[in-house]
Amino acid sequence: MTTETTHAPSTRLSRLTEDPRFNAASVAVILINAALIGASTYTDAGWIVHAERACVALFTTEIVLRFLSARSARAYLRDGWNVFDVVIVTAAFIPAWQGVAPVVRILRVLRILRLVKALPELRMIVDVLIRSTASMKHITALAALSFYVFATIGVKVFGSQDPGNPLREEYATIHEACFTLFRVLTGDNWTDLRYEAAAFYGPHAWIVTGFHVLWIVIATFLLINLIVGAIINNYQEVQEIEHRRRQNLDTSDRRLAELAEEMREILALRDAGRRG
Amino acid sequence: MTTETTHAPSTRLSRLTEDPRFNAASVAVILINAALIGASTYTDAGWIVHAERACVALFTTEIVLRFLSARSARAYLRDGWNVFDVVIVTAAFIPAWQGVAPVVRILRVLRILRLVKALPELRMIVDVLIRSTASMKHITALAALSFYVFATIGVKVFGSQDPGNPLREEYATIHEACFTLFRVLTGDNWTDLRYEAAAFYGPHAWIVTGFHVLWIVIATFLLINLIVGAIINNYQEVQEIEHRRRQNLDTSDRRLAELAEEMREILALRDAGRRG
Amino acid sequence: MTTETTHAPSTRLSRLTEDPRFNAASVAVILINAALIGASTYTDAGWIVHAERACVALFTTEIVLRFLSARSARAYLRDGWNVFDVVIVTAAFIPAWQGVAPVVRILRVLRILRLVKALPELRMIVDVLIRSTASMKHITALAALSFYVFATIGVKVFGSQDPGNPLREEYATIHEACFTLFRVLTGDNWTDLRYEAAAFYGPHAWIVTGFHVLWIVIATFLLINLIVGAIINNYQEVQEIEHRRRQNLDTSDRRLAELAEEMREILALRDAGRRG
Amino acid sequence: MTTETTHAPSTRLSRLTEDPRFNAASVAVILINAALIGASTYTDAGWIVHAERACVALFTTEIVLRFLSARSARAYLRDGWNVFDVVIVTAAFIPAWQGVAPVVRILRVLRILRLVKALPELRMIVDVLIRSTASMKHITALAALSFYVFATIGVKVFGSQDPGNPLREEYATIHEACFTLFRVLTGDNWTDLRYEAAAFYGPHAWIVTGFHVLWIVIATFLLINLIVGAIINNYQEVQEIEHRRRQNLDTSDRRLAELAEEMREILALRDAGRRG
Repeated sequence: MTTETTHAPSTRLSRLTEDPRFNAASVAVILINAALIGASTYTDAGWIVHAERACVALFTTEIVLRFLSARSARAYLRDGWNVFDVVIVTAAFIPAWQGVAPVVRILRVLRILRLVKALPELRMIVDVLIRSTASMKHITALAALSFYVFATIGVKVFGSQDPGNPLREEYATIHEACFTLFRVLTGDNWTDLRYEAAAFYGPHAWIVTGFHVLWIVIATFLLINLIVGAIINNYQEVQEIEHRRRQNLDTSDRRLAELAEEMREILALRDAGRRG
Repeated sequence: MTTETTHAPSTRLSRLTEDPRFNAASVAVILINAALIGASTYTDAGWIVHAERACVALFTTEIVLRFLSARSARAYLRDGWNVFDVVIVTAAFIPAWQGVAPVVRILRVLRILRLVKALPELRMIVDVLIRSTASMKHITALAALSFYVFATIGVKVFGSQDPGNPLREEYATIHEACFTLFRVLTGDNWTDLRYEAAAFYGPHAWIVTGFHVLWIVIATFLLINLIVGAIINNYQEVQEIEHRRRQNLDTSDRRLAELAEEMREILALRDAGRRG
Repeated sequence: MTTETTHAPSTRLSRLTEDPRFNAASVAVILINAALIGASTYTDAGWIVHAERACVALFTTEIVLRFLSARSARAYLRDGWNVFDVVIVTAAFIPAWQGVAPVVRILRVLRILRLVKALPELRMIVDVLIRSTASMKHITALAALSFYVFATIGVKVFGSQDPGNPLREEYATIHEACFTLFRVLTGDNWTDLRYEAAAFYGPHAWIVTGFHVLWIVIATFLLINLIVGAIINNYQEVQEIEHRRRQNLDTSDRRLAELAEEMREILALRDAGRRG
Repeated sequence: MTTETTHAPSTRLSRLTEDPRFNAASVAVILINAALIGASTYTDAGWIVHAERACVALFTTEIVLRFLSARSARAYLRDGWNVFDVVIVTAAFIPAWQGVAPVVRILRVLRILRLVKALPELRMIVDVLIRSTASMKHITALAALSFYVFATIGVKVFGSQDPGNPLREEYATIHEACFTLFRVLTGDNWTDLRYEAAAFYGPHAWIVTGFHVLWIVIATFLLINLIVGAIINNYQEVQEIEHRRRQNLDTSDRRLAELAEEMREILALRDAGRRG
């Protein structure tokens, strides 16, 4: 989009928004805003509220200027980062009713993330990270399927039993069971579940043990494969880039060799002509 | 198998089962069945039971159609995924006696996994994952051996001691000791074992500490090597594919060069003929 | 060694010990012995003791035969695996006095590890694992240094304080501090240390927090680098092997090209001779 | 610097400090000092204090000699390891007032780290590790940003609520919230936070669950990418070195081929001359 705007009529405005000092100033305001949000957790001083409002005013001005300097509304909104900007700053104008207060407060904090958009290095790395999730699509689908199957089995086997079952609460519903499985995967006090249930189940305790051990083994196996996949994927991209770079080198080498060959032929013809 | 069936006599049936819409419909039924299984954990409504029965009827029809459209029973059952299908759907007809009720219930939930068979991308990734375990065979054997040796030592040293020993229950039998070692490997409250035993063993507490620290170090070392092995193995496969691809390119390059050489020779002969 | 013995005079004996059936029998005895050791943890039956003695007798016979079939005592003991065999089997003859009973019992269990020596695939993978530790030498030295420095600081700062200090026991001595640091690294209830100490230290609680967080960050960083190093090291070896293999291919390609060139030159000379 | 000093006038001194025996002696003193620091945690014997003072005297002498043998003060201090040496040894002369006692004591322990400087292998690996952090710069910045955003949201949502909130202490301030997030990332009893808060929040418990699960997923994702990045980065360096090495080989191959070509041309000219 930025390259397109150089041909746009509103050149004075686009010259302003593309000035590195404009971006530096916007980074500065974001950092001040981040510091203010941090400070607001330590003190209730009134000046912070006013200073935050000033930041929001500057953010709004920045976005309006960037929008006007763009060739068209469509061109501006095609960039996901601009949409992110508009949503995050617009959220500042939502009044904090009782019901949505926490959501509005969280959206205000998320203004700190505008820093990622403002700093090209961070924006690039986040773009790479988002793209890298594409290669994890299928294995994530498999993991989601495993979560659903294990959670359903958990609810069916441990959740709908008689009231004395110590696992009844952890496997009460599918979403609670998903949380329990996530907890087991992080290894947090997961053996408590097993020791309590082992006492309750008696000779059938192997069901509880087997269920949880199998879950850890399968989930860890999927996680390892996800990491391995990410490494191989990254490696292939690096390899691809490297290969293309070398091929270019080879091509130029070959072109040189061809030129040398042509020259030699011309010389040979000339020599043949002389001798002939 | 699919390519073979195109030459089979029952072409009308195989045309039906190979229609993409047939597969899409079967995926839809699997998803509806998965949603029903999930819903059945929230409510006991009777219509769910009836809807599940309808799904099973559709599954059975699908499998019968696929079986009939195959060239032969052997050809059909050679594919592991078809065997999986038959087992999972047949399990729906096992009546849930008191004794096997949990197993039957689990098999019903596993019908969700038919999704893996129905979606080619998931089936492919599961095939890759299963094949990747082959490269882990030997290191898994080593890990199993380590589990057995440490569990046996644990039982001999901590399990058969006087009744006051705080580790007696955790190392009562080899299978309980294996579970304890797995728990220690996931790091779940493993130091409780050590602190309790340290108070009991007094000056010999180093045996308890040494045993568990050594186990963690060895098991983590094996785990790291398993991951490293998986990465290197994947890398080699990727490398192999890449190498073969380039060799093909090289071969076609060489063929072109040979053709060019031949043409040059022909031209040279013609020139020589003219001059001669 | 095995190749050397084929030229040795005691050929009849070496023919016996190199017979695949001899090795298969020895694997079978090791597996029976492993099962007996496992069974002895479930029952005190007298026949197990007798069966174990029979296994030891067979082991001893096997080692004596292997020793005699070797070219020389030195040649036999040069292989670390043979030394391992001798030590493990000799340990069976140490009487279990009161004092060393646990050590003798552990050595008896370790006879299961003879399986690694008997199965070539496992022996190879263990050889690889042992060699791979060489590349970890320096980073392990760094990790040991970090343990020593942090443990000493821990003892100096938390261990020798007034009796009310909740960390006094965990940092009483350098070896106890090393265990505490290992426990923190495995993440087992490490925040208990911090929360208890935070209440005791009051405004200076940041020392406790900083110490433990810094330790986790540094130790995890070293661990990650150890894993990365292992992967790169393995990769380099694979690359090296691959490179050598391709160089051989290249060499044979070049030799073919040279032969073709020579033939062309000979044909050209012949043609020149004819024309001349 | 070392190569420069060979041309310096104070050659007798530099010959001393560059003698391998000088370095070996300095390593020995560092090891003795490390052992003394360890011993001082077990006993309060007065001779340790005296022996430590002797070590400091030797360290000071060593550094003064090294400084004098350097070409200039600037040349000496350009090497970060020398600055580290000077700071660590100078710290030994700071009297331990009541206020800074722990800091001084810690600096004394850090003298053990002089070993890293004295042993070239360790110094090299630490240099590599420090350089490897450069490639982690941006992802670390992202992680810091995530910590700040989540900590601020945590304080805003859980920290400034009514006194009965069980998460009030864990999210009291931004730095306490950062510690809590670090604790959650290491997986230490993090579900306690969730179970306690779930009882307090009732129907809104999903906020607590979602916040912590999202944090674990995002932080683990960043951590995995950091590891993957480190591996790829290391791989690229190895690849680069390998590539350059092969290019050198190729260049020498080409040079040989060119020479052969030249020789052939000379021979051809000679033959042409003879024939002509």
